[in-house]
Amino acid sequence: MKLVTYRATVETAARLGVIADDLVVDVARLGASFDETMPDSMLGLIDLGRPGLDALRAMLDECEGSFPPGTAMALANVRLLAPIPRPRKNIFGIGLNYLDHVAESSSALDTSADLPKQPVIFSKPPTSVIGPGEPIRHNKAITQQLDWEVELAVIIGTTASRIAREDALSHVFGYSVMIDVSARDNRRAGQWIFSKGMDSYAPFGPCIVTADDIPDPQALDLWLTVNGVEKQRSNTAKMLFKVDELIADISSGITLEPGDIIATGTPEGVGAGRKPQEWMWPGDTVVASVEGIGTIRHPVIDVTTG
Amino acid sequence: MKLVTYRATVETAARLGVIADDLVVDVARLGASFDETMPDSMLGLIDLGRPGLDALRAMLDECEGSFPPGTAMALANVRLLAPIPRPRKNIFGIGLNYLDHVAESSSALDTSADLPKQPVIFSKPPTSVIGPGEPIRHNKAITQQLDWEVELAVIIGTTASRIAREDALSHVFGYSVMIDVSARDNRRAGQWIFSKGMDSYAPFGPCIVTADDIPDPQALDLWLTVNGVEKQRSNTAKMLFKVDELIADISSGITLEPGDIIATGTPEGVGAGRKPQEWMWPGDTVVASVEGIGTIRHPVIDVTTG
Repeated sequence: MKLVTYRATVETAARLGVIADDLVVDVARLGASFDETMPDSMLGLIDLGRPGLDALRAMLDECEGSFPPGTAMALANVRLLAPIPRPRKNIFGIGLNYLDHVAESSSALDTSADLPKQPVIFSKPPTSVIGPGEPIRHNKAITQQLDWEVELAVIIGTTASRIAREDALSHVFGYSVMIDVSARDNRRAGQWIFSKGMDSYAPFGPCIVTADDIPDPQALDLWLTVNGVEKQRSNTAKMLFKVDELIADISSGITLEPGDIIATGTPEGVGAGRKPQEWMWPGDTVVASVEGIGTIRHPVIDVTTG
Repeated sequence: MKLVTYRATVETAARLGVIADDLVVDVARLGASFDETMPDSMLGLIDLGRPGLDALRAMLDECEGSFPPGTAMALANVRLLAPIPRPRKNIFGIGLNYLDHVAESSSALDTSADLPKQPVIFSKPPTSVIGPGEPIRHNKAITQQLDWEVELAVIIGTTASRIAREDALSHVFGYSVMIDVSARDNRRAGQWIFSKGMDSYAPFGPCIVTADDIPDPQALDLWLTVNGVEKQRSNTAKMLFKVDELIADISSGITLEPGDIIATGTPEGVGAGRKPQEWMWPGDTVVASVEGIGTIRHPVIDVTTG
């Protein structure tokens, strides 16, 4: 299933939907039409665990593509928000997780050319999240090196503490797309939260594809363009630490919880690694996509003043 | 005012209290006795802003130390929890923010001997928070270098985006004590979230002292003992980046929100900087205090298995 958080109009509250061809079916309203209580938010659905997904799938199956009155709208007529507009904690980011990105980073930035022996973890605050179409905010007073990074995002479904690698994927709710926007000139003593955690630096969407629809998260093409020019293209097969290893590793010391998000790292092709280096500037448009999930498109705007 | 989150018994829910001598006055119940609705959680009170604090203070003043039946309990009879048991995002941590700690870190760890030009920011997930008396979890399979760091914690009261230094302290709700527990052997490519963010690595409490009761946050003694032996003693006057600078700096790119927590860095005397180095082990007791706020005491327990 492809799950979205959406607004029917600018005025109405964010709601939970599921994509059916070119329709968005409202999950809570679909439930009501079956006299069942279903959640109206992504985190609400995640918290229900497998029974929630099973119930939703059963209702969709029963509809056979014909939805009760008042439960479905044309996808083209709604505004999609970030699938989880407000995460309950910082996003876990993974650095240096693709071979060729380790190389380009060590040549351009202050990172080592050696492959990391363990995942390199950092975080991005909930305030960095923006939804599809929302602008990436460029403040020239802070950065002249704003960079792109397309990434597969993993959404945790069930609490995971000290999880073995072979059990790790059973804790995944689904997958999404994230751009790990990075102000390269704002790293501090090696810490990345400020350079990667500023407001609007986590474009996220357009949907969460449930884990059952992505049997192998390590076989997905991902790519990114700036102003229509392809900058990154790779496949999640090339991750150094696979999704199951990341979950096992983080959960060895930090309990992962339902709704947690892991941005799994970016492949080569970032602006810092190019010769000459390239950066994002106001007026640019960045588009990022992961195979089987979807595409997000974001303008870059100037917020230097005000 | 000294505000606490407490449980009257093991079974009952966490509630918001205010300390009056040796009593805990329940804020919501005190409000009810005045026919006013007052919050039953710290975040609820913070979200009310100054009117909430003003209302609470007015009620306390009116009581003149004699509280309506059912509103107060002996402090000795309640269990204090972390003042904010579940932050809404990761705690902002500040590294290398005291002169002599920069020096000891550079001699013992992989950090630079140069003073940082800007605050060094990292984060600790909400799952790392524990309350007064709760055990610090020592997993020998993960660390043999578990270290202590006493810190002044700042709790943000109102949204702060691009705040000038001179306006920064007006955004502070209050102050507390935090131990920034750090597994020195778990730093990864310079990123500290794993080494500092594991479960139980953010002992926090015993209370939040409202900002009006701490007119100068840069004049507070802070100290820490392990098994009764003093390991750290300094004064917040020695911070490299003062509280107002930290808020101005973070808010230049990352919007700070009500309830956000900033752990402002630790002075010299950590285990890594000692000769020979010292670490915390199961059976140890760590006590940390900041002048005018209070003291937290935490046993270290072994969780290597299970």
